[in-house]
Amino acid sequence: MKKRKIILDCDPGHDDAIAIMLAARHPAIDLLGITIVAGNQTLNKTLVNGLNVCQKLDINVPIHAGMPKPIMREQIVADNIHGESGLDGPIFAPLVRKAESKHAIQYIIDTLMNSDGDITLVPVGPLTNIAVAMRMQPAILPKIREIVLMGGAYGTGNFTPSAEFNIYADPEAAHVVFTSGVPLVMMGLDLTNQTTCTADVISRMKKVGGPAGELFSDIMSFTLKTQYENYGLAGGPVHDATCIGYLINPDAFKMQDMYVEIDVNNGPCYGRTVCDELGVTGKQPNTKVGMTIDTKWFWDLVEECVRMYI
Amino acid sequence: MKKRKIILDCDPGHDDAIAIMLAARHPAIDLLGITIVAGNQTLNKTLVNGLNVCQKLDINVPIHAGMPKPIMREQIVADNIHGESGLDGPIFAPLVRKAESKHAIQYIIDTLMNSDGDITLVPVGPLTNIAVAMRMQPAILPKIREIVLMGGAYGTGNFTPSAEFNIYADPEAAHVVFTSGVPLVMMGLDLTNQTTCTADVISRMKKVGGPAGELFSDIMSFTLKTQYENYGLAGGPVHDATCIGYLINPDAFKMQDMYVEIDVNNGPCYGRTVCDELGVTGKQPNTKVGMTIDTKWFWDLVEECVRMYI
Amino acid sequence: MKKRKIILDCDPGHDDAIAIMLAARHPAIDLLGITIVAGNQTLNKTLVNGLNVCQKLDINVPIHAGMPKPIMREQIVADNIHGESGLDGPIFAPLVRKAESKHAIQYIIDTLMNSDGDITLVPVGPLTNIAVAMRMQPAILPKIREIVLMGGAYGTGNFTPSAEFNIYADPEAAHVVFTSGVPLVMMGLDLTNQTTCTADVISRMKKVGGPAGELFSDIMSFTLKTQYENYGLAGGPVHDATCIGYLINPDAFKMQDMYVEIDVNNGPCYGRTVCDELGVTGKQPNTKVGMTIDTKWFWDLVEECVRMYI
Amino acid sequence: MKKRKIILDCDPGHDDAIAIMLAARHPAIDLLGITIVAGNQTLNKTLVNGLNVCQKLDINVPIHAGMPKPIMREQIVADNIHGESGLDGPIFAPLVRKAESKHAIQYIIDTLMNSDGDITLVPVGPLTNIAVAMRMQPAILPKIREIVLMGGAYGTGNFTPSAEFNIYADPEAAHVVFTSGVPLVMMGLDLTNQTTCTADVISRMKKVGGPAGELFSDIMSFTLKTQYENYGLAGGPVHDATCIGYLINPDAFKMQDMYVEIDVNNGPCYGRTVCDELGVTGKQPNTKVGMTIDTKWFWDLVEECVRMYI
Repeated sequence: MKKRKIILDCDPGHDDAIAIMLAARHPAIDLLGITIVAGNQTLNKTLVNGLNVCQKLDINVPIHAGMPKPIMREQIVADNIHGESGLDGPIFAPLVRKAESKHAIQYIIDTLMNSDGDITLVPVGPLTNIAVAMRMQPAILPKIREIVLMGGAYGTGNFTPSAEFNIYADPEAAHVVFTSGVPLVMMGLDLTNQTTCTADVISRMKKVGGPAGELFSDIMSFTLKTQYENYGLAGGPVHDATCIGYLINPDAFKMQDMYVEIDVNNGPCYGRTVCDELGVTGKQPNTKVGMTIDTKWFWDLVEECVRMYI
Repeated sequence: MKKRKIILDCDPGHDDAIAIMLAARHPAIDLLGITIVAGNQTLNKTLVNGLNVCQKLDINVPIHAGMPKPIMREQIVADNIHGESGLDGPIFAPLVRKAESKHAIQYIIDTLMNSDGDITLVPVGPLTNIAVAMRMQPAILPKIREIVLMGGAYGTGNFTPSAEFNIYADPEAAHVVFTSGVPLVMMGLDLTNQTTCTADVISRMKKVGGPAGELFSDIMSFTLKTQYENYGLAGGPVHDATCIGYLINPDAFKMQDMYVEIDVNNGPCYGRTVCDELGVTGKQPNTKVGMTIDTKWFWDLVEECVRMYI
Repeated sequence: MKKRKIILDCDPGHDDAIAIMLAARHPAIDLLGITIVAGNQTLNKTLVNGLNVCQKLDINVPIHAGMPKPIMREQIVADNIHGESGLDGPIFAPLVRKAESKHAIQYIIDTLMNSDGDITLVPVGPLTNIAVAMRMQPAILPKIREIVLMGGAYGTGNFTPSAEFNIYADPEAAHVVFTSGVPLVMMGLDLTNQTTCTADVISRMKKVGGPAGELFSDIMSFTLKTQYENYGLAGGPVHDATCIGYLINPDAFKMQDMYVEIDVNNGPCYGRTVCDELGVTGKQPNTKVGMTIDTKWFWDLVEECVRMYI
Repeated sequence: MKKRKIILDCDPGHDDAIAIMLAARHPAIDLLGITIVAGNQTLNKTLVNGLNVCQKLDINVPIHAGMPKPIMREQIVADNIHGESGLDGPIFAPLVRKAESKHAIQYIIDTLMNSDGDITLVPVGPLTNIAVAMRMQPAILPKIREIVLMGGAYGTGNFTPSAEFNIYADPEAAHVVFTSGVPLVMMGLDLTNQTTCTADVISRMKKVGGPAGELFSDIMSFTLKTQYENYGLAGGPVHDATCIGYLINPDAFKMQDMYVEIDVNNGPCYGRTVCDELGVTGKQPNTKVGMTIDTKWFWDLVEECVRMYI
């Protein structure tokens, strides 16, 4: 089987770290590079978090810093969920790992332009980096094989009643991506909330051991706490990691083709991914939306990946 | 037990007819009057439909015609669901029953102002009549015991991806009602879609017989057809009737207090009932939103009411 | 010459009082009735002001109270301009004059339906009464000869940078009127600000004497003060009175046909009358917009009318 | 006198060419570089036009290509005004002049970061380049001395009734700039339309002769034609050049401090510069808005600059 070439664009972030963990070692994935964006915390913090995770897990792909601000709106961060550092919980060794000097936007453009059109973008934070790259160099559009993103919801949002955090943090960027014509796969809250990590799952991964087992445990224990405090949940979803799961085995997911539009009006639905689930608009679907995931398979996959770091 | 005094405001409409059927005979309900609004079809048609249903079932409450147009937007009708007449399916005898001469708005205002504050409004169509009454005579607000309405959704809409028909047909009126401060109960699609009437249910009611059994069967057979054609459903929900069910026995419903806001922006969420299901806005709940209904109990209730017409 | 039949719909209000003064006595105008709306102040205050003005000037047309609230938005008043009473300045004798019992909406509908289509509506406050009448009884639309209104601006607003008070106080009602298809004449701030009443003009009218001279002087002296305090102006425009001027002698006005649309979006242009002055939209004009007025002629007209009350 | 250091950001474009002409030779201006943006035409065309103008006039500053697309909205161009090439009219010699390889965004960021905070940005096209630079590297904000831009209007727009082309072409970028906190000077249509170039002015500049006289004549003759066809005007404004005039001699301008906000709602005022001319919002002014220009002085300045190319 041919490995799937991806660029992982993220704002670590707890669930981002799990996504990195899966993408960097799984044999079905060829992780070309990691690009960092502001989101769960400011860029200087999400960058440090990404470097820390890669240093801890000995992941040697290039890491590029990207946009420190959304394309239009004022910046928001999700410190209620991810803490002051954006990755509260784990204690990391002194950081020596360094980011590349090239800007993430330039890296994305150059890598795509030099490719055969076989690279998939996997944005699991706000879509700022992807949108700016698209608008700065529209010639990349036909070069993108697919975009598999974490964000949005056809049901209830988590940051507002209508909107999920990643999209709400930069709705204008999301509008650029969803109107780009590039094939889109969207893992929204409706699906990702099915991957709720409970104390049992944490114990299981901890028992596997190694740096990944330890990191998983430290990370998800903190998530458990904030999810309970913010939403009264008994577990924490590993949202971002579902995108990697999909790339490894799409058959473990039930997907539905929908027309998805971003609400960029400054009202109570600002940042909503408006999903035409019933096909009432008559508009051509532009997105495969994740409906259900085989959860048992997913945790087995996570364990398999954690084990690869021993 | 004291009967619950209500004014039923409707736009018949198939499920409206079932709501009338339940409200007019059930001993827990004191149906003071019926007010008609444009919605499923134009006012001249919804009025005729309301009169026909009452004539057929020998229901002798006053019927008042109300607003023929929404308060601001251009008019839409749901002829895809309710047909050319707004109540396609049943064949009625020549119409002799007549509406009262007083306008529905004036009837609502006068009835409330002369009351002891013990009247509940039950709007199951667009909220135009209720909104105009509120703005024409704000003194009615403290006189309204409660508003139990059919409309909206916290999940997916049916007329647009975001909006349910009743609210979408007059979002500005809905805004007036949801910001009025009056206690609100909302039966949205999330709940009403649980009352899907299948061929089995139709047979059951037909077997009961009498004019109500016949009417139920004629009405819901047509609904079955349009719901299948429009949404691929194997049954037709009796949306509006759930409001009457709630007034008879609220314990058969699971409700959740939420802050609900109407999106009146001219974008893809125009007419959405934005429901703060997770309490992320920090705003005080203004609405009891229907979550689940005891379906077995509900069909028993419908049968009980159908039997009362024999 | 045939008199022009009008219903004057107003929210007195200082300049409203001058409009009443002109309309009630000028031989070219047949003032059928006055309808009152909330606007410059709450309805109970604007009604009292209208009654006071008519009692003081011995004007014996029927006065009908209308809508106390806008059709959708929360209410605002212009007490910064018109004071606590809505007509601060003049001292009136004890009020014995009474309003009719019929609601203004019903009066407008009945009067139009019983007419030969020769009645002009002259709304010089928020357009709430007119909009509700239109939506409650659409059959009046072809019965309205013309609507000559004071409101809006193609330049700068006075209540927000974008919006003039009358339109801002009920943008949704204005949307109904501007999309109604009825022939429209709009006297916006661009024109009405040309009728700035200075101390000289006040002296001139006072010298004429009689109850109208006195009332004009008391009213405009107060306006002078608030216009200076709010906008630094050395005079106060008599906005509403220009509509009566236009009906008496349209040749004193330069008008331009434009397509006018109301911005009902909840942003910085909420309530703006978007006027296609240059014809760039390609849309058919729906409004004659006032550009300039012969000011000398106008003050002569005012003096002529003031003199009629002696 | 110390020369004013500027980066001219433009989308040539006819009036852009005149702005380049003035900026490149006038002794009060130190033109560090020219950055090009899509706007009047697509980027590949505006870039060629900028290169052609500089080649023709022997202007040897670095030219950098920037954003080919707006940050969020779909692209529009003003070919109705500027023709198929974006600079129809003049015939240029074969193009040998080349753009720098560095992207305009990077050039703006690097130049500002290496400066002492004494550089003024002069954007006379859509604000895309400036906005992306600000969001990609927020550290440039305190390094910008001032932004002197052509765009917007407090009166009537030219591309829609509400909006001027430069702002309408990228309202989201304009929002970024107007909320940036950087000192802003705005030359809107209200001012720039005072610089209407008639046949007389064209003759005058042609008589001066040299490459600039010839170019001015070719350019403005075409503008005369399209302004007449589109707006019925007897002359063509040289909008962009007023910004250079202001930097040379601000005393020739009457300015007013205003709070300016961009309407980014998807309605009839999308792209409007909402200017609080009367100070009714109570918000702190963020922009010096051009009100009037000494036109005689301005044409003398243009002649003076044209003469410098002989």
